[in-house]
Amino acid sequence: MSTSLSAEPATANAPKLKSVRARGTWQQRMTTEIAIRDFTFRTDEPERVGGTNSAPTPMEFVAGALNGCITVVVETVASELGLTLRALETSSHAHMDVRGFDGTADVSPHFQDYALTITIDVDADEPQRSELVRQSEKRCPAINLVRDAGVDLTIDWDFGTAA
Amino acid sequence: MSTSLSAEPATANAPKLKSVRARGTWQQRMTTEIAIRDFTFRTDEPERVGGTNSAPTPMEFVAGALNGCITVVVETVASELGLTLRALETSSHAHMDVRGFDGTADVSPHFQDYALTITIDVDADEPQRSELVRQSEKRCPAINLVRDAGVDLTIDWDFGTAA
Repeated sequence: MSTSLSAEPATANAPKLKSVRARGTWQQRMTTEIAIRDFTFRTDEPERVGGTNSAPTPMEFVAGALNGCITVVVETVASELGLTLRALETSSHAHMDVRGFDGTADVSPHFQDYALTITIDVDADEPQRSELVRQSEKRCPAINLVRDAGVDLTIDWDFGTAA
Repeated sequence: MSTSLSAEPATANAPKLKSVRARGTWQQRMTTEIAIRDFTFRTDEPERVGGTNSAPTPMEFVAGALNGCITVVVETVASELGLTLRALETSSHAHMDVRGFDGTADVSPHFQDYALTITIDVDADEPQRSELVRQSEKRCPAINLVRDAGVDLTIDWDFGTAA
């Protein structure tokens, strides 16, 4: 039986796909030149592990990207909720068990745990803060990538002295 | 009962933890200044979604980091296997369903699928190639982060015309 409970067109909630592309070219000594649209940057490793220490490591870039990702989401959700965002700082501190990369133990090579602290100055009452936290954590791509990977993720929201 | 089947010290295969840290400061308009050790970079968004398009997006950085990560691992494993690596290029092409970020559908906000192509020029016979592929995929932190997150990850190794 067909139903017609909704007047919305069938495509109203169809997938809205966005491409993400990146290219990399090895430069020797643990260094990679990355090209994304018109942008370029490099990943590297510290000298003690064979790199030239000219840039963050790949997994440091993942952590930095997570900081940038939650920041975009909080700005977006705050705007939707009509909240004035005055300042937002983030801090990531994760641990990896290097035996995974080294191949010396059968452990995950990526993050074992991941602590994210979000320090925020926003005009919001308690229900608004809760809604901001709930939606931001649910909608952030990078946070959910790490969480879905089974990483022990803790997120600490510090609303400081904002009223 | 205590056992002494192994002469190895108890700490021989203890976790070897490495910290990964990053800080982020919101610059308004979807832009974040990221600080990692002595390095700084920014994440941004295209103008059509409210950014200033001064840098890649956070999830583009994740893709670029994955390219850099597998490159480091391949260089490392090739060296361990005594193989001469001449060139290595990587290409990531992923899709996200933006409804997750937008909060308009209950779908994952991160990668729906992720296609990685690795083009490699290395002196290696078939068993060596297989071992290089097996160890690299197992030991790469970023690849395993994406795989463990349930993303439909495909990895295509192109050994080109290398003997």
